[in-house]
Amino acid sequence: MNYCNHCGARIERRIPEGDNRLREVCTACGYIHYQNPKIVAGCIAEWGDRILLCRRAIEPRYGLWTLPAGFMENGETALEAAVRETQEEANARVEVTGLFALLNLPHVSQVYMIFRAEVIAVDGEPGPESLEVQPLDETSIPWDRLAFPTILHALRFYYSDRRAGAFGFHMGDIIKNGDGASFVARRASPEELAPGAIASAHR
Amino acid sequence: MNYCNHCGARIERRIPEGDNRLREVCTACGYIHYQNPKIVAGCIAEWGDRILLCRRAIEPRYGLWTLPAGFMENGETALEAAVRETQEEANARVEVTGLFALLNLPHVSQVYMIFRAEVIAVDGEPGPESLEVQPLDETSIPWDRLAFPTILHALRFYYSDRRAGAFGFHMGDIIKNGDGASFVARRASPEELAPGAIASAHR
Repeated sequence: MNYCNHCGARIERRIPEGDNRLREVCTACGYIHYQNPKIVAGCIAEWGDRILLCRRAIEPRYGLWTLPAGFMENGETALEAAVRETQEEANARVEVTGLFALLNLPHVSQVYMIFRAEVIAVDGEPGPESLEVQPLDETSIPWDRLAFPTILHALRFYYSDRRAGAFGFHMGDIIKNGDGASFVARRASPEELAPGAIASAHR
Repeated sequence: MNYCNHCGARIERRIPEGDNRLREVCTACGYIHYQNPKIVAGCIAEWGDRILLCRRAIEPRYGLWTLPAGFMENGETALEAAVRETQEEANARVEVTGLFALLNLPHVSQVYMIFRAEVIAVDGEPGPESLEVQPLDETSIPWDRLAFPTILHALRFYYSDRRAGAFGFHMGDIIKNGDGASFVARRASPEELAPGAIASAHR
């Protein structure tokens, strides 16, 4: 960031008075350009026993598999964003059944909100952001060709819950370590505070 | 927004190729200035039978009462943001017990994440953003002088759950109507899908 959005003058990085963080501040009009984390919303869209996965037609991670998900837009709710992205990327109309996972990615300043949803209809070809869309079951998911660690961990929780016979709500952080990333559980609900639940979520 | 952050040229509002929304696009370098919703994170900080409320020393809503909460910063998690804001505004150190409410405000493009937390210690005077901090119980809360509808609805859920003897997770939207705002429940969990629960959440 080099120039002020408001007056076009140069900006500088400094800590404004009364603040304690470096901000982009205009040297002429003093406007402070705050930058904040973005929300990525998406769905685990269930179609019978299978779920919809999309193969990415765009960078980053071209050709790898993902859940339909994308940046929440101004003026919409997280649930609306998840439903819209599922329509755009998988061309599927869904009805959301609940919030399933809330995952922080502090190293890229993103928060993922993954909902569970039921597919009402799939309307032909996928959108331009997907090479293909496939309804897959656990054994047919390309586990070694998933686009993002958030997708890997959300799907692990999903199948773990499914085997256990009950879907929970999963909150935590995806922490980057080298080329990989691990999940660290954060307190989501009294049930998840049980030592067994927290231990099993560290993987 | 008038000028490009990157090259300083004029921006225009148009729909970029392959997009379907109006964006701020640079007329010279083509950079697209996306704008996305912001996350506000805060705590219902429990101190015995009471919770901490802050009286705002800043605009908007100077002099009105609020939960300690503020904009999540880049590089932190939502839980870290809630704990930090509680430290800054109420000068209280807390331990989070769980996510309590996730409230969308599409008319201002914000998402509130309210956590429940236990106060470990209160360290003297409140921060510069608060005129005063008080531990209050349900009957002493200034219900007609709360700063934001998110705070009102979060506190209503809190005391309703407390009377019922169990804390749930509340997800929904705060929709502006005239001078007021009402809460509309969105599907959060199978339990909240029970007709009685949804009906009681519309208020």
